[in-house]
Amino acid sequence: MPSSRAARLPAVAEPDSRRAEICRAAARIFCDQGFDATAMSDIARALRMTKAGLYHYFPSKEAMLFEIMTFGLDRMDEEVIAPALAVRDPAARLRQMIMQHARIITRAEGVVAQLFHEQRALPAHMRKVVNNQERRYFRLVRDTLKEIRGAGRLRNLDLSIAALSLIGMIQWLPRWFRQDGRLTIDQAADEIANLAFAALLKPVDRKKR
Amino acid sequence: MPSSRAARLPAVAEPDSRRAEICRAAARIFCDQGFDATAMSDIARALRMTKAGLYHYFPSKEAMLFEIMTFGLDRMDEEVIAPALAVRDPAARLRQMIMQHARIITRAEGVVAQLFHEQRALPAHMRKVVNNQERRYFRLVRDTLKEIRGAGRLRNLDLSIAALSLIGMIQWLPRWFRQDGRLTIDQAADEIANLAFAALLKPVDRKKR
Repeated sequence: MPSSRAARLPAVAEPDSRRAEICRAAARIFCDQGFDATAMSDIARALRMTKAGLYHYFPSKEAMLFEIMTFGLDRMDEEVIAPALAVRDPAARLRQMIMQHARIITRAEGVVAQLFHEQRALPAHMRKVVNNQERRYFRLVRDTLKEIRGAGRLRNLDLSIAALSLIGMIQWLPRWFRQDGRLTIDQAADEIANLAFAALLKPVDRKKR
Repeated sequence: MPSSRAARLPAVAEPDSRRAEICRAAARIFCDQGFDATAMSDIARALRMTKAGLYHYFPSKEAMLFEIMTFGLDRMDEEVIAPALAVRDPAARLRQMIMQHARIITRAEGVVAQLFHEQRALPAHMRKVVNNQERRYFRLVRDTLKEIRGAGRLRNLDLSIAALSLIGMIQWLPRWFRQDGRLTIDQAADEIANLAFAALLKPVDRKKR
């Protein structure tokens, strides 16, 4: 609701950066102690704000969670889906999607990604927005595999299971990836892309590439 | 704590089946509405018990969650890890682990598996038990891949990332698999095993098999 947001906040002093700061802090607290176990006062305290000050930005905890998820989904749109749609070759598109998805999902220790199971706590109309966007991403992966198949380059496999398994591999990343670990995120994502390509594409095609 | 459990419950009337029934109901409720948002009274009501009756079996909600997780980990032990250790050929062992893991993780709509992110709510000593068991499973998968490598049959890949990605693919299953869907769990697991084998094993070896 950008219009009502603009009406409620002064145009000066970068109101969006304050909202973003609140969302960042809230995401981390939700992730650490669980959405249901977090009170608005916990978030206010972490930000050295009053509860009333926090309610000025967000009418409810659910609205905050929804904005965090929407933020994550917007990143998916801007950094994964939109650039992918610009890549013509479906195999190159697939690799780019894997790399980009891995990069954004591990950002900020993956707190946004790890909140997605809390969507259960959202009201139905908000949950629907999240689910629709997730389905949109799934379809893009599956359609990309279908295009690779159309070019005779896909192994004999079930498109939906392949797409869901690939998404699962990437979604699992924030559970184990450590920013200060042995590998950079690009190295880890590259390994996953190699695994996925070996799993999905016909060997002869991979040799040609 | 089997000894204290035996002391608290009469030996007649199958106390374990009642405990199991409570755990089943609790797992479903935790999964539907979240662990933190569930009260002991919600579980008692669903089971048509008094709260006092429920406390007779479990001293706390955390103890119940821990027993549910322990139940899931025991199934992993009995149905995945123990049978795997009996399979000598590492590639055959890997396929069997994938199949068995997929089968148990989707049982009862995967409610037990989907509760694992709630381990954050457990006291540290309980969380440690869960984490140790998870690590044990990860090591078994990684060591199996190492054995396949030792036999010259593994692609050039990072053992840890390959193991974690494979586990991620399977752990993602309960998020999308529908018991009444297009495929049986054995068909879905078989597809995942095929994807994993193509991703992990050298092509020449797969042709020989």
